[in-house]
This record gives sequence, C-alpha cells and structure tokens, in this order.
Amino acid sequence: MLSEGVVFIDDQYVEPAEAKMSVFDMGMVWGDAVFDVTSTWDGQFFMLEQHLDRFEHSMERFQLRNPYSRDEVRRICAECVERSGYERTYVKFQIWRGLSPGYGEDLRLGQCHFMAYAIPYVWLWGEDRCRNGANLHLSSIERVSSKAIDQRAKNYNRLDLVQARHDAFDQGCVDTILCGPDGHLTEGPGYNIFVVRDGKVATPDHNILEGITRQAVLELCELEGLDVEARPVHPAELDDAHEVFASSTAGGVMPVVQIDGRPIGNGHAGLVTTRLQESYWARRETGWHGTPVSEILNSGA
Amino acid sequence: MLSEGVVFIDDQYVEPAEAKMSVFDMGMVWGDAVFDVTSTWDGQFFMLEQHLDRFEHSMERFQLRNPYSRDEVRRICAECVERSGYERTYVKFQIWRGLSPGYGEDLRLGQCHFMAYAIPYVWLWGEDRCRNGANLHLSSIERVSSKAIDQRAKNYNRLDLVQARHDAFDQGCVDTILCGPDGHLTEGPGYNIFVVRDGKVATPDHNILEGITRQAVLELCELEGLDVEARPVHPAELDDAHEVFASSTAGGVMPVVQIDGRPIGNGHAGLVTTRLQESYWARRETGWHGTPVSEILNSGA
Repeated sequence: MLSEGVVFIDDQYVEPAEAKMSVFDMGMVWGDAVFDVTSTWDGQFFMLEQHLDRFEHSMERFQLRNPYSRDEVRRICAECVERSGYERTYVKFQIWRGLSPGYGEDLRLGQCHFMAYAIPYVWLWGEDRCRNGANLHLSSIERVSSKAIDQRAKNYNRLDLVQARHDAFDQGCVDTILCGPDGHLTEGPGYNIFVVRDGKVATPDHNILEGITRQAVLELCELEGLDVEARPVHPAELDDAHEVFASSTAGGVMPVVQIDGRPIGNGHAGLVTTRLQESYWARRETGWHGTPVSEILNSGA
Repeated sequence: MLSEGVVFIDDQYVEPAEAKMSVFDMGMVWGDAVFDVTSTWDGQFFMLEQHLDRFEHSMERFQLRNPYSRDEVRRICAECVERSGYERTYVKFQIWRGLSPGYGEDLRLGQCHFMAYAIPYVWLWGEDRCRNGANLHLSSIERVSSKAIDQRAKNYNRLDLVQARHDAFDQGCVDTILCGPDGHLTEGPGYNIFVVRDGKVATPDHNILEGITRQAVLELCELEGLDVEARPVHPAELDDAHEVFASSTAGGVMPVVQIDGRPIGNGHAGLVTTRLQESYWARRETGWHGTPVSEILNSGA
C-alpha cells in the first residue's frame, strides 16, 4: 500500500510511487541504514530537535554520513509536510549506504543517500486500537541483543520483530512485545512498553530504542506527579500489572488491554494510562514541545 | 560500484543500473528478505540444487512466498548467466516482501518480489587474497543470535557484520570473524571458518549459515581422507591452530594467514588448506557437482 504524501529523494520532491533505490544498495544488502520518525499535529512538529539529535547519534553509531546538514534536514522535512497538504503527518527521514565501493574495499567509502517523506499521520494499530486498547502477544523470539546491534540506533534489522509479529497475528493479537537475551522485557516493533502497578509506572531501561515519545511520557509522569522509573522489567510483571501501555510517535500513549487474550486489569484502558494519554494529546494541541512547520519554512536558514 | 551483468526483476531482464525497488518495500524497511548466491565456473553452476534447497528453506523460515516456481528460478538464473556473456559468474537470487498491506495488518498479506542476477565472478577479498591468504580481525562485536534471527536462513540483517568489518579495516585487516552469544566462533560476512591442528579440521556447528561451500569442504575432507568435525570452536583455538581457512561461494577455499596481524603457522597458506583449495578448483573444472548452464536452457522446462 502506497500512501498519499511527498518524498524527498535524490534532491527532488516526488510522489511515493516514484521513490526508488538500487537493489544493489548496501542499505538493502547489508541492512546498512538508520532512520527516524517524527510527526506533525495541526501543523506543529513534536520534539523535532530530539528526533534530529537521535538521528545524528544513530548515524554516528553506524558510521553513516549525511550529505545534508541538520538545517537542511529540518527544512526538507518541513517542505515535505507543506507539499503534502496535510496538517497531521508522519515524517520519516532516513540515511543509507549506497553502492559498494567494490569487494574487499572499506564499505565506508560508499556514498550515503538521504531520503525524507511526509505522509498522513499513521496510527500504528489503527486509530481505535491506539486510543482504546490493543491485545499484544508476548513473544518467545528473542530481541536482537545490543551486543550485536546497538538498539539505541534506530535501524531496519528487524527480522526478529517481523517473526514475532507473524506469531502475534497467528495468536489473534495485533502486535507483540519481545524479551532480550537476559530475559527482561525490551520493546515492540516501533514502541516502548510501560507497566503500572499501584500507581507506579515502570519501563525497560536497556536493549531498547530510547523512544522520544517514551521520553515525553517520562516527562508527563513528572508533570502529573506520578512515580516513574526506567529499570529492568521482568515479563512476569505483565501478569501483576494493573495497567500496561505503549508509547510511539505513531499513536502516542496506547493502552494495552490484553496480553495473549488475557485481560490486564479490567480489560479496559486504566486510569493512569488514560490520564497520560489525555495529557499527551491536550498538550500537543497547545504546542507542547512543538515547532510550527511554517516557522521553519519562513526562517532564513 | 555497479558491475556488468544482467538482472531479472519485475518480469524483465535489465541492466544493473535499472534494477530498482521501492524505498517503502518491507524488504528494506523491515529487513524482510532472503537470498542465496551460487556461481558458474566455465559455464557450469556449482551445487545448484543445494542452493535452491537452501533458498526454499530460508523462505519457509521467514514465511516469504516466491511467485516463481523452482523450475522457473533455475531457468531465470541460467538465462541471466547466458545474457551476461560471462562463463564465470556470481549468481544471486532474492525474495523480499513488497509494500505493506497497511498499518496493523498482517505483513504476510504483502506481495513478495523476486529478483535474480548474474555478474562476473566475485572474489570476496580480491582474487589474490582469496587464493593466497588474508589477515582477518577477531571481532568483539557479537554475532546476532539464532534465538533472535535464525542464521540458517540467508538474510540481510547484517549490521553486526558491517560494524565488525569497519573495525577490521581500522585494524588493517580485510575482513572479520565474529563470536556468538555463547562465546564460540560463528562465521564471517559471507563465509564459514575452519581451523586445522595436527591435520584435523574443525568448523563451528551452530549460530551460522550452513554454507554450501562449507558442505563441499566437508565432502572434500572425506574424499581426501582428512579428519573433519563440525563442533563448537572456541576462539582460543585460533591461537593454537596450525592453519585457518574460510569457505565461500565467492572465493572457494580461502586461506587465512593472519589474525589481527599475528601469523597463523608460518604466515602462509598451510598444506591442508592448499590441498583442499587445489582439490576444490580442480574438481570444479571437471564438473564436480556441476550443472551446465546450456543443459538448463535446452531443457523443455
């Protein structure tokens, strides 16, 4: 399915159907690529500088070099949103290594490519499930260890997540949570996980992508006076949790109301989750951590 | 660097520069793809049916479905070689999941794409190093565990290998060997590893791609009356080895003469390695495990 929207690739703005890469590119053949995703809501980017920071860290970790400066990336993203005609968008930017410099040569001599796009805002599980709750599968497939691939860098090596999602669908679930090599919870495909017990919120602290929405949730907990902690979370805590929720750019604060068909709490979004979800969207609508698209487009940079 | 050669993609034979995929394809965005590589030498495929078997197993493991039958794949590969005009070729075939069926939908509903190509034969480290010996780096980066991604299926989730190769280049080495999560040797990027001590040959037995050239080497050892074993191999055995070598479709039997600049044995290809290497190429020239390209093209299938 190709969405509506606008892609910036090879120095041009094109339709999604025209955005292509070589099948020989190392981004595909070696999985040598990183990306980041932010969003706009009513014409405002959310925590854009934090996403740009993380994108730069991801590139550094995998020794990818962006031919565009940070100012150019910011402006290209704004331009994609503007040209898309949508106010609520999902904005991805990505860098990947292009053609190999030759066998037995230093891969880093390959030229890197940059792409960005804006498409209508994505609700990871569909809007209804993102707002009202999803049934997730606790996977028996292990999340790739950060000792092998540093999961703090947002990358496309996701065959573990793909297989776990297949299993989730086979179990009648919409998505999945994976444990790491040490048996603790890590994350799902594109989201972090939180457990709530006795009003206390906890989220895994290692072998994860440190989500920007996760960071927003940690901040919201402080603002709302909730006790919150990033620490190792054992999968058994899912059994004891009063509430579970996920966080993602593509859905915000998303209630998890069942694990493998077993209800969490009363099987509906809990009080803490609902409070954080409402706070998240209400604040976004007032421009919390926002950067107006128009401000970037009108700036001299 | 785009090679000479011929690519079959989207039901057409095209030049490498024309072979493109959507940047939205799940093959890229989820790393949801498998492939296999065989070769022709003087117009004969090597162990083609074994490569086709493994390709099918790789697809099954990751639930990818090939729109082309095995007979069609065989014929397309032969056609690519014929059209390339080369007798000695590197032949890749690949399947990847195309566009997503939509967020929150079963990924398996995405249509799979098939591609194959023939390019001039590839020597993984350049011909001289593949024939006479290479200096490899023993990486401190962990190979992705088969508990996360089944390494028996040939896949593109290779960021661990990429980082290990960067480190190898920084150390003045041409390539690398990685250990698995249990600390035992696994493989390098595109090749298996063998150690030889007192005339006895050993190769790692788990968390690896079970190479077809590795299988040929195991058979050659039997034919040459050499003691050979697939078993866990500890990295310390590299220190004690009299010889080390690698096996790959893209280079055959390849001597490893140094690890991080430290010579193995006398720093030249050893007797066992040389015997296996000579046997491998001599037998290939006489059609050992060979299927003539012309035979496939002239068959009714």
